[in-house]
Amino acid sequence: MARDIRIVTEAELRQAVPLNLTIVDVIERAFSALGHGTVVMPPILSMELPEVHGEVDVKTAYIPGFDGFAIKVSPGFFNNPALGLPSLNGLMILFSSKTGLVEAVFLDNGYLTDIRTAAAGAVAARSLAPPNVETAGVIGTGVQARLQMQAAHLVRPFGQVLVWGRDRQKAEKCAADLADSLHVDAFAVSDPKELVAQSQLVVTTTPAREPVIRADWLHPGLHITAMGADQTGKNEIDPQALAACDLYVCDSVSQCEVSGELEAALAQGSWTKGTPPELGQIINGARQGRASDDQITICDLTGTGAQDTAIATHVRTILGDVGTSIRA
Amino acid sequence: MARDIRIVTEAELRQAVPLNLTIVDVIERAFSALGHGTVVMPPILSMELPEVHGEVDVKTAYIPGFDGFAIKVSPGFFNNPALGLPSLNGLMILFSSKTGLVEAVFLDNGYLTDIRTAAAGAVAARSLAPPNVETAGVIGTGVQARLQMQAAHLVRPFGQVLVWGRDRQKAEKCAADLADSLHVDAFAVSDPKELVAQSQLVVTTTPAREPVIRADWLHPGLHITAMGADQTGKNEIDPQALAACDLYVCDSVSQCEVSGELEAALAQGSWTKGTPPELGQIINGARQGRASDDQITICDLTGTGAQDTAIATHVRTILGDVGTSIRA
Repeated sequence: MARDIRIVTEAELRQAVPLNLTIVDVIERAFSALGHGTVVMPPILSMELPEVHGEVDVKTAYIPGFDGFAIKVSPGFFNNPALGLPSLNGLMILFSSKTGLVEAVFLDNGYLTDIRTAAAGAVAARSLAPPNVETAGVIGTGVQARLQMQAAHLVRPFGQVLVWGRDRQKAEKCAADLADSLHVDAFAVSDPKELVAQSQLVVTTTPAREPVIRADWLHPGLHITAMGADQTGKNEIDPQALAACDLYVCDSVSQCEVSGELEAALAQGSWTKGTPPELGQIINGARQGRASDDQITICDLTGTGAQDTAIATHVRTILGDVGTSIRA
Repeated sequence: MARDIRIVTEAELRQAVPLNLTIVDVIERAFSALGHGTVVMPPILSMELPEVHGEVDVKTAYIPGFDGFAIKVSPGFFNNPALGLPSLNGLMILFSSKTGLVEAVFLDNGYLTDIRTAAAGAVAARSLAPPNVETAGVIGTGVQARLQMQAAHLVRPFGQVLVWGRDRQKAEKCAADLADSLHVDAFAVSDPKELVAQSQLVVTTTPAREPVIRADWLHPGLHITAMGADQTGKNEIDPQALAACDLYVCDSVSQCEVSGELEAALAQGSWTKGTPPELGQIINGARQGRASDDQITICDLTGTGAQDTAIATHVRTILGDVGTSIRA
C-alpha cells in the first residue's frame, strides 16, 4: 500500500516555478472553472489565536477534470517579525482527486500563494484593464506590491510604474526593485491620489482597514484590482467606488461578501446593483466585461481555493524529479 | 530562515506510537481543555466530491498552553476499495503555536486519527462506564471496532467481549482478533439486542444512517459510546434513547448538534433536556457524571480537532530521531 510522496521545499519551488505567463494561464483556468459553477469550494476555515496574535486559514477546492486538489494552510503570526521571522508561512498539500491519497507536500512557506495571488491580478488585468496601460500604480510596498506589478507587466507591458506606501523609504526601495526587474521607469509618489490620477491600472496590496482610494479619485479608463482585503474588516477602496464605477467584479461573490471590498459596501448599503459578476464569468463570456476603453472597472480579489488547486496540480506536472521522495 | 521539518511515515508512527494509557491520558487532557472552554475550535471544513464518491474533512484546534497545533486532513474516497486501496487516508501537520511555522508532517494515512479516536472511547469509558465491566460489546467489525475494544480494555479490563456486525464472518474474525490481542473470551453474536443485554459497556463503530440500537434495549448499569456518526445524516442510536437514558454526553455540543447522535434527536424533537454536558466538563467536575452504578449513560463522539492537536503535539515529543528531516 506504500507509495511515494513528493516533498518539495520553498527553495526548490522558487527555482522550478517562476511567475510567468504559464502560471497566469493556469490561474485563468481556475477562474474559468469557477465561472462555470462546477467547482466545489467550501467556505474558508479560519482560526484565530488571539493570545499569540496569530491566525490560520485553510482553503481548498475541487475542480472537476483536475486530477488533484489542494489543501492550503496559511498561518499569519504577527509577532514573528520581532523574532526575525516572516509573518506569513504555510504549505500546500496535493491530493489525488480520484483516491484522496496524498501525492505531494509543498513546504513553500507561502511562495505558491504569493505567485498564484499575483497571477490572479494579471488575470484580472488581462480581462478588465484597458488594452493600453502606459502607467501602472501600486499601493503598498511589500512582496505582493512587487509581484503584482511583475504579473501585470506580463499582460499589460507598461513603461512606467508608480508606488505609494505609508513609508516613503519602503516605497522608494520598491520602485527601485521594480525598475531593476521590469526595466521600466519607476517612481515613489507622495500622494496616492496622484498615483491613481496618472495610472490606467492600479493594484492595492495593503492590509488596510480604512480605504486608501477614494471614490472621487476614479477617472475614465481606470482599472483597479484590490487584492489586500481577505478578512472581515479589511477595506482598501471607498465603498462608494463599487457602485460608482461601471463594472465591479468579484473573484468569488460569497467570499467578497464576507471578506472583500463588497463587505463594507453591503454594510453601508451603498451597493444596490444585485449580485456582481465573477471574474470567471467574464473570462467565459457569460457576463459582460469592460465595454469601452474609458469605462472604470474594479476587481475584488479575496483569494480562492480554486487557485490553490490549479497551481498545485500544475506544479506537480512541471517538477520532474525535484524534491525528496518519501515512501509512506 | 530555513529550518528542519520532520516528515514521519505511517510505518514509523505505528512503530513509535502504540495505543496505550499514555495516549488515553493525552486525549483526556484535550477533553479537559475543551471542558474549560478555552480551546479555539472552528467548525470542521468539509468538502464533498460527489463525482468521485469522495469527501474530505479538515479539523483543527488551538489549545492554550500547548506549544503546537495540528491541521488534520481526512479524505474518504469510497471507490477506493475497488482499486485495492483503503477508503480513509490523510495526514496531520503540526505547526508551532508561537510562530505558525510547520514543525512536522505526519504522513499517517489516518493512523493517528484511528488511535486518538479509540483513546477518546477509553476516556469516555473511564469517565462514564460503571466501574466494573465484565462484558463489553462492540457494534461493527472494522479497524475502530478492534481499536475501541483495545482502548476500553486499558481502563475497564473486561473478561469477555461480544461482537456484532451485519456480516457474520467479519464479526467472527473481529472476535478472534480481539481474543488474541486482549486474551479475553470473545464471541460473535447474531443479534445486537443480545449483545446490549449482556454488556455493561457498548461501543458503536458503524457508518449507520438508521439506528442499530433501540431505546427499549437500554438496561440499568449500561454505558454506550457512539463513535460512528461524524457526518450529517449518520445515526447509530435510537434518538429516543438520548432522552431515555440518565445522562447523555457530547464530545462537542456544537458538533453533535450537526453531525452526531444529537442531530436526529433534535430533528425528531425528542431531546428536550437543554444543552447536554460535554465530556470535558465531566472530567473537570464542572458537570455531574454517572451518579450510581445502575445509571444508564451515553457518550456521543464526533471527533474533535482538539484531539488532533493533542496527539500531534504529544507525538512530536516522543519521536526522538524517527522520520526524515527536510530543511525548508
